Amino acid sequence: MKVNLMHGAGGEVMGELLRTLTAFSHNNAGGVGLESLDDGAIIPINGSNIVLTTDSHVVRPLFFPGGDIGRLSVCGTVNDLAVMGARPIALTSAMIIEEGFSVDDLARIVASMDQALGEAGASIVTGDTKVVERGSLDGIIINTAGIGIALRPVRDSTLQEGDLIIASGTLGDHGISILSYREGFEFGETLHSDVAPVWPIIERALAAGDIHAMKDPTRGGFAAAINEMAHKSGVGILLDEEKVPIRRSIRSAADILGIDPLQVANEGKVIMGIAPEDADAILSAIRSHPTGADAAIIGEVISGSRVVMQTSIGGERFIEPPLGDPVPRVC
Amino acid sequence: MKVNLMHGAGGEVMGELLRTLTAFSHNNAGGVGLESLDDGAIIPINGSNIVLTTDSHVVRPLFFPGGDIGRLSVCGTVNDLAVMGARPIALTSAMIIEEGFSVDDLARIVASMDQALGEAGASIVTGDTKVVERGSLDGIIINTAGIGIALRPVRDSTLQEGDLIIASGTLGDHGISILSYREGFEFGETLHSDVAPVWPIIERALAAGDIHAMKDPTRGGFAAAINEMAHKSGVGILLDEEKVPIRRSIRSAADILGIDPLQVANEGKVIMGIAPEDADAILSAIRSHPTGADAAIIGEVISGSRVVMQTSIGGERFIEPPLGDPVPRVC
Ligand SMILES: Nc1ncnc2c1ncn2[C@@H]1O[C@H](COP(=O)(O)OP(=O)(O)OP(=O)(O)O)[C@@H](O)[C@H]1O
Ligand SMILES: Nc1ncnc2c1ncn2[C@@H]1O[C@H](COP(=O)(O)OP(=O)(O)OP(=O)(O)O)[C@@H](O)[C@H]1O
Ligand SMILES: [Mg+2]
Ligand SMILES: [Mg+2]
Ligand SMILES: [Mg+2]
Ligand SMILES: [Mg+2]
Ligand SMILES: [Mg+2]
Ligand SMILES: [Mg+2]
Repeated sequence: MKVNLMHGAGGEVMGELLRTLTAFSHNNAGGVGLESLDDGAIIPINGSNIVLTTDSHVVRPLFFPGGDIGRLSVCGTVNDLAVMGARPIALTSAMIIEEGFSVDDLARIVASMDQALGEAGASIVTGDTKVVERGSLDGIIINTAGIGIALRPVRDSTLQEGDLIIASGTLGDHGISILSYREGFEFGETLHSDVAPVWPIIERALAAGDIHAMKDPTRGGFAAAINEMAHKSGVGILLDEEKVPIRRSIRSAADILGIDPLQVANEGKVIMGIAPEDADAILSAIRSHPTGADAAIIGEVISGSRVVMQTSIGGERFIEPPLGDPVPRVC
Repeated sequence: MKVNLMHGAGGEVMGELLRTLTAFSHNNAGGVGLESLDDGAIIPINGSNIVLTTDSHVVRPLFFPGGDIGRLSVCGTVNDLAVMGARPIALTSAMIIEEGFSVDDLARIVASMDQALGEAGASIVTGDTKVVERGSLDGIIINTAGIGIALRPVRDSTLQEGDLIIASGTLGDHGISILSYREGFEFGETLHSDVAPVWPIIERALAAGDIHAMKDPTRGGFAAAINEMAHKSGVGILLDEEKVPIRRSIRSAADILGIDPLQVANEGKVIMGIAPEDADAILSAIRSHPTGADAAIIGEVISGSRVVMQTSIGGERFIEPPLGDPVPRVC
């Protein structure tokens, strides 16, 4: 069998390849390991919960409205730490560069990473650089890994019946913006990626109440994340379409592109299941930070095993787990 | 300015590019950070010294005598942890795969990684997978990052005058073997890479005596590593050519290829500066493990700032820091 693009698209098809790629007998260092397929691993060391995670970034183009590969590289890892409940502490920067790449562009990328590190409160403390011959890579790939400390670790598999579901902001911005920009579409206003560290809003939310489960809706979008959370938790979800925040401009662009904005990557958002009695406190805490200004309660956890959306015209439809993100090289 | 292949070759030229790539204001998380350019960073957390490091692997071919990209990926990160004095605990596996890559080869690579994890006593606990379109990458790149715990952290910059220098085994095996194999040369016997985790020998050495400084001589080889250690420590080194262990077959191949075996990557070796009174104990400890069977005391730390080799015919020559490793895509 050969690898195809859907194997890297964050959906059900990628899940099949992961069976091969995660076939390690040495897959756990004492806490939450590879078997959980969560956003990161948790390693208890001397009384601290150290969270470890990694993401590589192959986005095209390298510079796009709202961000660039540098900002994305820092936020990717920071956000997987954050949704495990961990304060991001230290990151690695591993660059694989094609011969002929511009050193000025590298400097721009590094400056953008540094800016995102400042927003997240983390540092790049070590790295690696490989250069490959012209033609054997198109430009640059950046991998980051990172560690954080979780005072109260949060999983993606621990939704409870009765929980309310929060989306920390509008959905679909990153994937739809990247694709529109790549296709050269104009929609009156320029669409922007949402790429941002979510730790600042998660830190406030954790202080405000009881978060039962979290995940960042990256490749495969909200649809992949909410289905994974429901499936792993053994629950159903009931969503209210009118409450799901999607920018009007993003919705129009998505319609024209023929793409579901709930199936594309977000890079500055978090989906939470929270104790209903803490809803007001957590929602105001998130909204008190610009990154969480559009946060909304969009549904609730019910018994069952499916994700159902009550539509604005009074009907119901299933939100299915996507086979993969429809936008390639989005992160 | 444009990036060229020497910018990724682990020598003096790479040092120039690193000035751009490490220009972070957020470069330290409290212990040893990016400013030290050591094999990894040290982050003190709750009384533990957590070491964090990363390496990407672009070696060609993917499968070579003595190893493959999977074994190399695990050993690369394990060895940077180990030379910081850290027991390797948990690693990440980030694969970037070209569309069309064989899933059977992925399974072989994963099995080889698992074998190396067993030898090192570490686990892969989290990862990431990206697939890029055919033609935008030649095959596969694997990044690993990892954390370890150092009871007594060891730096590469803390050689002391009077220390003895130990090489944990023969030098030049990996680089010369890879190049010979790639060029299709036959030298009577097949040359093998030395790729192996060095933690088992370092663990024994740490228990046997006082290690003042360590480094793994990867890209740029022994010549780059010993010069970096001497320069950072503000000392000179006097080496005895007759004591420097190089396999006869590797030396012959290197002669024919016109390459200095002291300038090519090793992937299962460590260079140590140790307290002279502990020399016997440490040397026997290292030799008691197969990976350290050929360990030898090869020189001593003196005042000054240069690395000098006393040659077998009674002369002296400088061992200069190489501009870069002469073998491309060696790791
Ligand atoms: N090559 C791999 N080796 C080991 N584990 C992997 C690998 N690729 C992915 N995983 C694991 O599979 C799960 C899903 O990975 P994925 O990268 O989709 O998560 P994510 O980082 O949260 O999403 P995204 O990469 O879209 O931001 C995670 O638990 C991850 O650790
Ligand atoms: N892109 C980068 N960003 C930040 N730091 C980097 C980057 N590339 C290298 N470094 C740092 O520069 C120093 C030298 O890196 P290098 O990769 O040569 O070390 P190494 O891993 O010990 O050697 P090798 O990669 O040959 O095994 C290390 O301290 C590393 O953390
Ligand atoms: Mg995630
Ligand atoms: Mg991620
Ligand atoms: Mg390196
Ligand atoms: Mg090293
Ligand atoms: Mg290394
Ligand atoms: Mg990922």
